[in-house]
Parts: sequence; C-alpha cells; structure tokens
Amino acid sequence: MNVAIVGATGYGGIQLVNLLRRNRNFKLSFLGGNKSAGSKWNDLFPFINIENDLTIEKYSLQRILESSEIAILSLPNGLSSTITPELVNNGIKVIDLSADYRYKSLDKWKEIYYKEAEIYNRNDYELCLESVYGIPEFNQKEIKKSRIIACPGCYPTSALIPLIPFMLQGIIESEGIIIDSKSGISGGGRTAKEHLLYSEAGEGISAYGLLTHRHTSEIEQILSHVSGLNIQLIFTPHLIPIVRGMFSTIYGRLKDPGLTADDCKILLDNFYRNYENVKVLPVGTYPSSKWVKNSNDIYISVNVDNRSGKIILLSTIDNLLKGQAGQAVQNLNLISGLKHNEGLDLTTFYP
Amino acid sequence: MNVAIVGATGYGGIQLVNLLRRNRNFKLSFLGGNKSAGSKWNDLFPFINIENDLTIEKYSLQRILESSEIAILSLPNGLSSTITPELVNNGIKVIDLSADYRYKSLDKWKEIYYKEAEIYNRNDYELCLESVYGIPEFNQKEIKKSRIIACPGCYPTSALIPLIPFMLQGIIESEGIIIDSKSGISGGGRTAKEHLLYSEAGEGISAYGLLTHRHTSEIEQILSHVSGLNIQLIFTPHLIPIVRGMFSTIYGRLKDPGLTADDCKILLDNFYRNYENVKVLPVGTYPSSKWVKNSNDIYISVNVDNRSGKIILLSTIDNLLKGQAGQAVQNLNLISGLKHNEGLDLTTFYP
Amino acid sequence: MNVAIVGATGYGGIQLVNLLRRNRNFKLSFLGGNKSAGSKWNDLFPFINIENDLTIEKYSLQRILESSEIAILSLPNGLSSTITPELVNNGIKVIDLSADYRYKSLDKWKEIYYKEAEIYNRNDYELCLESVYGIPEFNQKEIKKSRIIACPGCYPTSALIPLIPFMLQGIIESEGIIIDSKSGISGGGRTAKEHLLYSEAGEGISAYGLLTHRHTSEIEQILSHVSGLNIQLIFTPHLIPIVRGMFSTIYGRLKDPGLTADDCKILLDNFYRNYENVKVLPVGTYPSSKWVKNSNDIYISVNVDNRSGKIILLSTIDNLLKGQAGQAVQNLNLISGLKHNEGLDLTTFYP
Amino acid sequence: MNVAIVGATGYGGIQLVNLLRRNRNFKLSFLGGNKSAGSKWNDLFPFINIENDLTIEKYSLQRILESSEIAILSLPNGLSSTITPELVNNGIKVIDLSADYRYKSLDKWKEIYYKEAEIYNRNDYELCLESVYGIPEFNQKEIKKSRIIACPGCYPTSALIPLIPFMLQGIIESEGIIIDSKSGISGGGRTAKEHLLYSEAGEGISAYGLLTHRHTSEIEQILSHVSGLNIQLIFTPHLIPIVRGMFSTIYGRLKDPGLTADDCKILLDNFYRNYENVKVLPVGTYPSSKWVKNSNDIYISVNVDNRSGKIILLSTIDNLLKGQAGQAVQNLNLISGLKHNEGLDLTTFYP
Repeated sequence: MNVAIVGATGYGGIQLVNLLRRNRNFKLSFLGGNKSAGSKWNDLFPFINIENDLTIEKYSLQRILESSEIAILSLPNGLSSTITPELVNNGIKVIDLSADYRYKSLDKWKEIYYKEAEIYNRNDYELCLESVYGIPEFNQKEIKKSRIIACPGCYPTSALIPLIPFMLQGIIESEGIIIDSKSGISGGGRTAKEHLLYSEAGEGISAYGLLTHRHTSEIEQILSHVSGLNIQLIFTPHLIPIVRGMFSTIYGRLKDPGLTADDCKILLDNFYRNYENVKVLPVGTYPSSKWVKNSNDIYISVNVDNRSGKIILLSTIDNLLKGQAGQAVQNLNLISGLKHNEGLDLTTFYP
Repeated sequence: MNVAIVGATGYGGIQLVNLLRRNRNFKLSFLGGNKSAGSKWNDLFPFINIENDLTIEKYSLQRILESSEIAILSLPNGLSSTITPELVNNGIKVIDLSADYRYKSLDKWKEIYYKEAEIYNRNDYELCLESVYGIPEFNQKEIKKSRIIACPGCYPTSALIPLIPFMLQGIIESEGIIIDSKSGISGGGRTAKEHLLYSEAGEGISAYGLLTHRHTSEIEQILSHVSGLNIQLIFTPHLIPIVRGMFSTIYGRLKDPGLTADDCKILLDNFYRNYENVKVLPVGTYPSSKWVKNSNDIYISVNVDNRSGKIILLSTIDNLLKGQAGQAVQNLNLISGLKHNEGLDLTTFYP
Repeated sequence: MNVAIVGATGYGGIQLVNLLRRNRNFKLSFLGGNKSAGSKWNDLFPFINIENDLTIEKYSLQRILESSEIAILSLPNGLSSTITPELVNNGIKVIDLSADYRYKSLDKWKEIYYKEAEIYNRNDYELCLESVYGIPEFNQKEIKKSRIIACPGCYPTSALIPLIPFMLQGIIESEGIIIDSKSGISGGGRTAKEHLLYSEAGEGISAYGLLTHRHTSEIEQILSHVSGLNIQLIFTPHLIPIVRGMFSTIYGRLKDPGLTADDCKILLDNFYRNYENVKVLPVGTYPSSKWVKNSNDIYISVNVDNRSGKIILLSTIDNLLKGQAGQAVQNLNLISGLKHNEGLDLTTFYP
Repeated sequence: MNVAIVGATGYGGIQLVNLLRRNRNFKLSFLGGNKSAGSKWNDLFPFINIENDLTIEKYSLQRILESSEIAILSLPNGLSSTITPELVNNGIKVIDLSADYRYKSLDKWKEIYYKEAEIYNRNDYELCLESVYGIPEFNQKEIKKSRIIACPGCYPTSALIPLIPFMLQGIIESEGIIIDSKSGISGGGRTAKEHLLYSEAGEGISAYGLLTHRHTSEIEQILSHVSGLNIQLIFTPHLIPIVRGMFSTIYGRLKDPGLTADDCKILLDNFYRNYENVKVLPVGTYPSSKWVKNSNDIYISVNVDNRSGKIILLSTIDNLLKGQAGQAVQNLNLISGLKHNEGLDLTTFYP
C-alpha cells in the first residue's frame, strides 16, 4: 500500500515517516512539504534514514494520484480542507491530522475555527458529515469503512479514552467535568514561535486558553454523542517543559457514590480488554509521562474520593504518537484491513 | 536582631541564609546542621558568601541562647517538635517551617503525620494551640504578637492566598473545590531520593498522593476556619521538571453565578491592596511560574465560566521563597516590628 | 543620568531594563523597539515592573537627544552601525552590545561579518578605531574616557578573562590554545528560530560553527593585542539545554612546565584582586554554571597537568549578565564616573 | 540462549531487560538485584513488561547455573570481581559492564580503582589477562572467542571509536590529544546521590574529575595498545542537564598537516564500512546527541584546522545504549554466533 504524507517535515510528519519507513505493510510514496521542496529527505534528516531516499515535493494532486492510494495530511487547520475534497473525490483515502473534519457540522467548525474560516471559504458540508472521528479503541467499525478519517487532537485523545466508558454507561454526571491537562512543548509544533523557545518555555509552567481552547468543543462533541446528553465541561491546558508527553487529570462526579475505585478500574479493564495499548493501572499506581514516551500507549489510573463521590482519572500519552501520528497509523492500519496496532509495538527506553 | 537558622544546609535553610546574609535588620548568629557540623559555610557554599563566615554547628540550646533572639527551624517534620518547646520556654521566638505547629489540634497532627507521631512522642498540645499560622497577608496581627509561628507548606500557600478572600465572604461554595497543583522538584528537598534524580524526574510529569496528600487537611483546616464551615476538598499534586516554581489551578463553584471575572478580580485587588507582593493580573492574562522565580511574589489570575458558574483561580509562586523561606522572612519581619516585606524586594531575571 | 535602551525587548534589553529600573544612579529615559513600538513596557512585561511606566518607541535620534545622555544599543549586528555614528556625533555616549565596534579595523569586521557588510554599507573607520573594547577588569582606564564602547561577546568574555593574565605575561604558549565552550540557549536571542525551540534544543547537546565561529577572531584580536603576538586558536562552541549560563574549558601549554596549579591560581588572584566579581576558586574546586545564574560574577578554576605541561582553565558566567548586559552596566558605571560594580551586587538563589 | 542479568534494576540493567525481553535470540532467565529481591519485575516496571514475568532474586551461583548460559553483570566496580571467576569457572560466559576486567593488568586496576581495591581483595590476574575489551567495531574476532568480555565505559566508547582508526595508522600525533566530553546525568547511575538530583543538576553545567578521572587511563591503555606507543592524554568530563546522551569533542594534531577533512572522513568511512551503526557525517555536518537517543548508533564528524594542523573529532552516543547496554548486547550477539547488531536496529524518535 502506497502512502503519501503531506506536511512531512513538521513534528507530525516526521513521526509518520519514522513509523512507516520500516513498516512492511506500507510504502512511503510521496513526501509533501512546501518549504523544503526539492530537498532529499535523508539530507534534511540524516538520523531518520529512508532506505529509498525520497525528494520532498510541493503538493500536487497529479503526483499523489500517480504514486499513492492513501494520503495522510499533517497540515495547518484550514489548509487541509483545500485539498481533502479533491483527494477523496479522486479515490484517495484521506487520514487528516488537522481539525478540519473533526466536527460533523461544518458550521460548528466555522464557529470554533473562525479565524481559519475567514481565510478558507469552505463548503464541504457533506464531507464533514461523512468523516469519521478516528479513535480506534472506540469506533473501529466506522473507521474501517471510511474514506476520510479525522484524527483527534492530542488533548481530546488524552481525555476521551478515559472518559468514554464512563459517559457511555452514564456513570459520571454530565455536569461538572473538569479536565486539567499538561502538555509537552512539541504539541505547539515545529514552526518557530517565541513562546515555544527553550528560553521562554524552559524552567516554567503556564496555563493558556482558559475556557476558550478549541479542543473544549471537540471533547464536548464526542462526549455528547457518546452519552446522548449535552455535555459542557471545563478544560484547562498547561504548557510544561518536557519535549514529548501529555498528562491529563480529570475530575467528575459519580452518579452512584457507592462505586469504588476498583469498580471503576474493572469497567476500564473490560471496555479496553482488546486494546493492549490501553494500560489500566492498579488502583493507587500513578503513571509518569516518561512511561509512554516514544510509544503508542495510554496509561490510565482511576481513583474515587469517598468523601465527595468524585472520580479522578489520570491519563498519559506521547502527544506526538498516541496523540497524533501513532493514532493516525492505527487508523491507517484499519482502513487497510490490518489490525489497528500493526507496527506500533515500539520499544521505548527508560529513563 | 540575631537569628539562628537550624537546618541551614537544606534548600529552605540555604534560602534563609541567602536572604539574611545581606539584610541590615538581622544578623546570622547560628547555623545548625548535623551532617555538615564543623564545616565553614563559605567552604560548602562558595557561591553564597557570608561576610563573617560562620561554622556550621550541631544544634545546642545553650549555643542558641547565647547567640540569638529568634530561631528559624528548617527541619524534617517531627524533629522540630523536639526542640521548639525548650526554645520558646527559654525566650527564643520560633519560626517553624515544618508541619509540627500548623494544626491547632495536636491530635489532628498525630492523625495526619502518623508515621512521625510513632517516632516522636509529642505532648505539646498547648504550644500547638498557641502557634499562629504564618500567612502574613491574612493574619498579620496575630503573627506580630506571637512567639511561635508555623509557616504554611508551599502547596497550601499557593492555594490559600487565592481562596481565602472568596471563602471569607462566602462567595465560593464550600463543596466541590478542586486544587490541581504542579510543583518543581526542589519542593522534595535536598536529601537524595531516587524519584528526585534528574534522570527520573526530568522529561516527565506525574501525579502523586491523590486524595491523601497531607497538605489536603492543612488547607481544609484553614479554609474551614476562615469560612466557619466544614470544608472538604480535593487536592492533586503533580511533579514537573523545573527546579523552582509552583503553579496551582483551582476550581470552585460560585454561589452567585452572576458574578463576573472582573468582579472577582476587584475582590482580590481590594483584599490584597496593602500587599504589593500579591499581584492580581488583568482578566485574561495568565502567569508563568518563570515570572516569580527568585522572588517572594504570588501572581493570581481569575476567570469565570459563565456556562457552569465555575470560578478558576490560577496562582504561581517560587516554592522555596513565597512557599517557604521568603514567607518565613515576612514572619520574621513582623515579629521584629518591621514591615512584612523588608528585604524581600528581590530583583529577578527573565528568562 | 538618563539612559536610552535601544532594542529593549530582546534578552539583552530586558536584562538592561531590569538592572536599571531600580538603580538610583540612572534613569531609564527611552526604550526603543520596533516590533513593540506603542506598547507600554509594563503591559508586555508585568513581571518586570517599571515604576514610571514607559512606552516603547521606534528609534529616533531626536527623541534620544531630548531624553538621554547615554544610549545602550542591543541591536543585531550591522544595524547598530546605522545609528551609532549619529548618536556619538550628537554627544550621546554609546555602549554597543553588537559586534559592530569590536574590531579596531572595519575591514576586518567586513571580512568576518561579510553577510552584514553586504547589507550595511559602512565607512565609519575612525569610530572603529576610537571604540574601546569593554572588559572593565582589563581596560578600565580606556573605558572611563571613551564615548563609544564595544561590549564583548559572551564567548569572548568567558575566554578572555581567564586567559588575559597568562597571555599578558607570556606564561601560556601562543600556539595551541583550545577553547571548548558550552552555552545556554538564551545566547541565541529571543527571535524565534527553529533550532532554539524547546523541542529542538531540549534533551540534546550539539556543536556548531567549528573553526569558523565569528567569535574566534574576536578572541584572537584581543589576545594578540595583549601578548604582542599573532595568536591563532581553536574555538568550539556547543549549545546545551540550560536557559542561562556559559561554561568554557580552555586548554593551553605552559612555557614553563614547572609551574603548579597553585602558582597559576595566585597569578589570577593578584591580577583580579580589585575585582570582587572575578572569583578564583581554590585548586581542585570546579564551578557550576548554576553558581553564577542571575549574577555578574565570573568563576575561574585553574589546574595543571604535570605529565604534559598543559594548563586547563575553567570559567563560568551568566551569558546574559557578565556575558552581555551586566558587563554593559559595568561600562555604563565607568563612563559615568562610578565604580564598575555599582548596582551589580545581585542576590542570586540556589538551586 | 538463556541470559542472566545481575544488577537488573540499575539503569544498565533496565536497558538490558528492555533490549532482551522481545529479542527472539535470547531468553531472560534470571534477574538479579539485592534491594528488590522478591519483587516481580512487572510490578516494579509496569512500563517495561516482560511477557513471562520474572521475580527478582538475590545473586546465587546455583540459580544461574540452573537457568542460564550467559551472565551479563551490571554491578558496581569491584563487586563484579567477587562473582565473575566462579561464573566463568563453572562454564558461564560473562559480559561485565564494570571496570573490573577492562585492564589487562590487575595491578593497574588496583592503582586506578584503589578505593575498590581496599574493599575487594582480588587475585584474578589471569582472568584480567584473558578478558577481552568489548568494542565490537574494533576487535570482533577476539570477542567471538572469549568467555569473559569487559564492556568499555561510556566515555571511552565515545572517544575510542573516533580515535582508533587514526591512532592505528599513526595519523594523529601521540602527544597532545584532548578529549572534552559532556555526559547526560543518567551516566551517574540510579543510586540516589545529591549531585544527581534534578534540583542540583538541572539548569547547570559543571566539570569534574579533571586530570584524574579513571576513564583517562582506560582510554590511554587502549590507544597505547592500538598505536604501539605510550599515549598520555587529557580527558575532561562535564555533566550537562540531559537524561540520556554523551558528546565528545576531541582535539589532536595531524602528523601530516596536508590532510584534509575529507581525507579523514574517507578514512573513517573505510574503517567502519561494515558497521552501519557507526555513522560518519559529511564534513561540515555536526550531530546532536538527540539523534542517537534510544539507539545503538554513534555519529562521528571530523574537521581539520588548516591553520594549525589540528584535527577535531565530534562523536555522540546514547550513554546507556552504545555507551553501556547496547554495546553489551553487541558482545552478547558475537559470543552467541550472531551478527553484532541483531536486535539493535531500534526505532528512535525525534524530537
């Protein structure tokens, strides 16, 4: 299966190349990148060697049609929507890492991504409706059949996998959910911005986007869909000085305050029993983001406060793998008829 | 005024020496430290030079009585209670950085610090009752008159200063408060422990002590006292890879959901108008822990979620200064008849 | 004395504002910055508060003449030369942090800074000749009398202060000097560049500019001048993941292999005996860059290899203070008739 | 092939378990560790799961004889020598990560490791003579036949691989070699020590062990053997705040000053043409330690200063893999009749 990666030199793209360059099921057939067009990949990244070196090219529908059956897009929000329709209409399956096809309603997208909506004049309502939200541990069936998959953001991934089982079964109250997330700096991408400089981000922690971060509505959409209720929640992202890694601390209220932490752990165990990359920890064991670095795993730990009937869920992922490119490869596997975790059993090192 | 520092070579002690060595109002008269006893301070810390170099000594009541009027104790929990009574009874004013005198009820202390209570057989019920909890921005009057002051922990300081004004006036519901805190590694002290190694703590974030961290009850005690209600809350500490700094993200429910973020900011402004080290940020400006590094300041930012009636308070401090030694010097100033912030207007550098 | 800072919002400028905003000898009278022109300083930097808040302005000779007697320029190389002549000619003393006036010979500058020389058509040969190289510990007398001072680069500062005493007295061979330097990331400035991103620079070390780094010739110029010989040396800079700090490990061959490390230490002690900011460590004590963070000090340690007759000099500075803005303030003090270290006895914290 | 790991819970041991747990050629048959004896591996390291979980045991010759054919020892210096002779004599092949068998002469070991020599009364002169120094890229033939292999230290590995080709052919002068090395903190091991704390090692760089570091003599022994000359050199180690990684900057003088950097690159290319884990970079491309993190590769870059006839070699490795456990697995492969790099083609991620 020939795979094109459009936006290959950002952090998402680099992970994708790295995951696919040694994968026997797929062949890298096109690497797109505007700034680096014309350069050989191996000259730019001598430490991520591709056996049959490729030249980075400008995006071209023609070139992708010639070379590839599937395209993975790792492009800025909005830009993706300028090429996805023509790719899909020409028979290329698309896995999109941007937010462009994460909302069933294009109008909702235009509301949330209003800045991008001013630049890109979108009318692909139907493609938005058709697109499948790509969390393989939750909607594998839909993903398998789809020709356009929207990969979730890293924050939503870290929040939804722990929450979905509880919301699906109505165990956590629909009101009052708080997601307090901490992200490594690579989540901000590879484009040089002042606040992502080592000198600015190092030796400090800060919060940003309180109440208004765009991932809030993305999480709410999925949880509302899952629970059949109108979920409104609080999401607070923080930047912490690690390169890779994301940690979410999630608070909710149990409908049945008699539930114990062990009950909740068993629920998670059962829900994810076929997904070995979802690792539910024993009650009282709390993960470090170091454990998931360079892996496609998610660790979850659950505890319950008897005094208040509150549940606390901890989750941690590698923001660039399970939070981005690793999840894309899971989706790539599924639409290619493979098991979701093919080629993703990565050896990670500690410390 | 001659000041003894007992436990001078831990991180708290080092900050105290550093703050007082050039302070014209106080003279360092005794440096206590068991492991380093016999060494000259300037040999151990050539980069924190004391003009009249002192030799570090083992603790001795006699030596403190001869040399000092005030003792600041930076000792492990429990150990402090073995010397504080005799110091106080001999006329030495004590500022204690441990948890030993933070609870009005010694029985509560024995419940929470049960491991230490097994080692140290305490009966100083009255001294616990007499001791004043040392947040100068809140109970300056009591501090001034006291001969024994218990300095708050770093986590409680970062949570209480933002919360007290709201709890005092009954603006935040007594139920449902969540404090999600992130601490730099120096909060774990200078004694070598595996989980504090660079290799273990670097490039990772983890949570610990969920539901059971001992600072939970310390915060609850003060907020219950302040509000006249029985406050029970959730406190979740995290370790993040910065040397100095602490950041707390606090969630609560407003009794009056009509209050705006600006209303709440004004309340904070008014409450702390005489404390220039409490810096209330404009609504929508969020601090970084980098801003407070090497200072005794606390930055607070407040926001309100109109949809849910929730208030979010962000605070950040230097865990070793406002969270520990800087606050101790504020208390030292007050019991010495000085303004609380004498010698604490520190020049910090960015980035 | 009224001081203008041109280029106030880069890292050099921020340090300068921070050092001068509380300095009784100087008054900040003009803050220049193109990108931020029109903003209030305190809005941009709420954590570095100026009592009488200033508005950042575009550069204007007129405004500087109205407001200031001295200008400190923290501008990119080449740009400084476009305003320095008119400032000096109008009676404003200039302290320049760029490389523009570090070479006595403008032709040498044009050779080394050939890219800048293509952009900026310079003819200020005489001003280059007049300019004094601003290492106060070495040429205080010339600095005091000068109206244009070129502050050394951070790498040259860290190398020259340890080497000058030995080169002046002919103790180290003129051939074979190697300077292996390690710099924190803030040395690359505040302008967003990919290689300075946290994700790129964190958790890694790299070398750059081997044999060709422009500071090589700057160091060689001064050492040649000092020794009266034609010094050619090897300088290898490295980037390491710390925000602030610079560490240089310097190797040379002793002319007299009988000299001991103690002899060399005494030489340094004597040479710098009037400069308390130059701290010569006991033989066998090696500094950490942490010791100098947020200070204007330089620590030097010397050792001698008896087997080979080689001398090893270690030095460490804060690259933004002694390596940049702190040294500029020393020079500012001197041209203002003050002691070089006025206002620079900073309280730094450990760890 | 059944492999015992003695000292499994230190950083070296953890890497070994990680490398071997999924390796089809070897089976983990015994995990030794005194402190953790009795614990299940998977309970201690839930993030490094062994399929057939093992219980960590105290060392026992009997248990190793029953279970294993090869033992890899990751023990403190000196301790290794207390069990290696009995293992070898009982037919267990030993790969030792300590310094105990790195010197052909036990007397030399006693001189350099004099503190350990006071504790451990060694007389295994013959085993020292028999032991093979385990750099597979250099002495693969001897390794294959040996029953006791001494793995090099991380610093020597980083210095020897670039230097050996030049010293073997007499291209670099025997006098005047300088090795300026920078190591990540994990090189100091997992045992809690104050100077390895995050708070102490973070945001700083320091040098240590000038002139006397024990790896100096280890490097000298090998280079003297290789060149047939008595090599004396200067080695300066530094600690920098990264978890994993080592970078060495090596200076020497060319005998023939007419050699170019390209000539030197070709020499390296040829020497290591059968070792794809040795990556020689194009002249002018300099590596970052980030490139080798979590890999068994070494990157080398060479440059020549025409002015002085000096050669500069840069090398970077992951100190825990190519510098320790990865190299041990190369040796394990060789004594098992496999290719040196079986199971070592690791996928590493950037950034």
